[in-house]
Amino acid sequence: MPELRIDPISGRKVIIAEDRAGRPSDFESTESVHPPDASSCPFCAGQEQQTPNPLWEVLGESGDWQVRVIPNLYPAVSLDCNHATEENSFQTLSSQPAYGAHEVIIESPRHVQELTELAIDELAGVLLVYRDRLRHWSTAATMRHATLFKNVGYAAGASLEHIHSQLVAMPFVPEVIVREMQAAKQFYDREGICIFCRLLQKELEQGERLVSEVGPFVAFCAYAGRQPFETWILPTSHALHFHELSDDEALPLANLIQQVVSQLQTQLKPLSYNLVLHTAPFGEQLPAAYHWHLEIIPRTAQLAGFEWGAGVHINSLSPEHAAKRLRDAFI
Amino acid sequence: MPELRIDPISGRKVIIAEDRAGRPSDFESTESVHPPDASSCPFCAGQEQQTPNPLWEVLGESGDWQVRVIPNLYPAVSLDCNHATEENSFQTLSSQPAYGAHEVIIESPRHVQELTELAIDELAGVLLVYRDRLRHWSTAATMRHATLFKNVGYAAGASLEHIHSQLVAMPFVPEVIVREMQAAKQFYDREGICIFCRLLQKELEQGERLVSEVGPFVAFCAYAGRQPFETWILPTSHALHFHELSDDEALPLANLIQQVVSQLQTQLKPLSYNLVLHTAPFGEQLPAAYHWHLEIIPRTAQLAGFEWGAGVHINSLSPEHAAKRLRDAFI
Repeated sequence: MPELRIDPISGRKVIIAEDRAGRPSDFESTESVHPPDASSCPFCAGQEQQTPNPLWEVLGESGDWQVRVIPNLYPAVSLDCNHATEENSFQTLSSQPAYGAHEVIIESPRHVQELTELAIDELAGVLLVYRDRLRHWSTAATMRHATLFKNVGYAAGASLEHIHSQLVAMPFVPEVIVREMQAAKQFYDREGICIFCRLLQKELEQGERLVSEVGPFVAFCAYAGRQPFETWILPTSHALHFHELSDDEALPLANLIQQVVSQLQTQLKPLSYNLVLHTAPFGEQLPAAYHWHLEIIPRTAQLAGFEWGAGVHINSLSPEHAAKRLRDAFI
Repeated sequence: MPELRIDPISGRKVIIAEDRAGRPSDFESTESVHPPDASSCPFCAGQEQQTPNPLWEVLGESGDWQVRVIPNLYPAVSLDCNHATEENSFQTLSSQPAYGAHEVIIESPRHVQELTELAIDELAGVLLVYRDRLRHWSTAATMRHATLFKNVGYAAGASLEHIHSQLVAMPFVPEVIVREMQAAKQFYDREGICIFCRLLQKELEQGERLVSEVGPFVAFCAYAGRQPFETWILPTSHALHFHELSDDEALPLANLIQQVVSQLQTQLKPLSYNLVLHTAPFGEQLPAAYHWHLEIIPRTAQLAGFEWGAGVHINSLSPEHAAKRLRDAFI
């Protein structure tokens, strides 16, 4: 029997319909990768002339870069225009320049594709670059928020396979975050506690959606996950901004992320996913307003007309079954 | 320079970034279809024993069915449970049964895949079946709304290639429609006119996004389209409910839909798309509350972390360029 679930944070409706997993298909999709050789991948060490000058670099002991941040050559937003104003566009149906910064974080000089191929301290170093780039943009007067995300695999919208993430800083708070904040504020007014802290408490109590815990971080399958194996990672202590991550927290967080991706790799081959950081708007001070978290969304099913037309997702694997499979994979 | 656009109805933000169309890719995806032979496609004439008894059939002159409506064998919602109540799920994190009806409309007894392969009066007949099934559910006390949609091609989430659509009737109004209705009501209170009627007026005045017109229906590329070539079809006269379509309107509407899909076929090969009908909730009486329309969303780009994480779509072809290419294709 299909179930209707309401995401406890966003209010988003999701239908869990496991019987749909068995439906027949006339279609098959095969992804192929054309691995660039070391002389053509623009993100490999030695190919730096193919990309713009770096905005930031982390150097290793040898003096070579380990993590390199560059402007996106094909940006969705640009700093070379006026700061966008949110006027009522309906009156004019005119366009505004899309103001913002779009950066690529190249996470290794080697041609590796997955964060499980990085040493744990390399991944911890990458997380600190995320923090530092967010910290950088948090001080820009024109920016209100930045979205940091990673697309892995064709089905997740990746174009290059060399390990990288992207950061888009913008002068407005994106809708997904606005909605989550509205829910958090309403919940706090009513209950006197952060909605994410309460959710974490419930997930730890119930246990059936837990995937893994490392130090001060917990991973669980989202109660109303939109796709099979959708997994969220939260800090157990209340924290508004990812850019306030301490140096000490980077290693346990890297550990947990690697664990979760390893667990997902046992279940989905090839594994395509989006990893998205949700963090509070820059300058947000109200402690209960938000709680940063990571969403890892494996991309196994195409969104179809029902998702586009109704805004309701159909997930063919329950989060409880997904979490059990991930936990079992790790034994 | 990328542009930021705000959808005039939903308020959804979309970035138009044409330069992104040229970015390099390591990935290639090939879709293959395993065309079932006539003895294995469950939707072909002669294979009726593979599917449930029909809920509705349109018979041809020979007495054979031309359009056949059956319950979905892999439903997202079910009538075999209690009517869902929208309690606050956060307090319990418990699931509710997903109450509703999920039907498949098989649009031809022949193994054809595209609505451009139907004769025009066949497609008009299919549209009248849409109307009649919506009319049927509009009288059910438990249902508030139905979403009618068509998934064509693997990238659009189709599983079977034999031409068909789906209808999902539910006891709640889906979020996409709720948002559009809120906008329409606010606009009417302020301006004294339906927001869709005003949009239509502007699109006809400006002309640059117009694709085609047939009788009382107009097609244009959406001002803030989420994907290249996203096209909307609206009746020029204000109309709340698709289920009030007159017999006479079916033929010009079929004509316009076929024209638009033919135009899209010249630009995108293979063409995968979702066609979604947006119609007012059942029982809605306030004339200004809504204006039914069809959205045709070609599926050319994978949604990536930015779309999932920020709720902002990036479209690499401007609606004005898309509309010009569609108009030119038709000359």
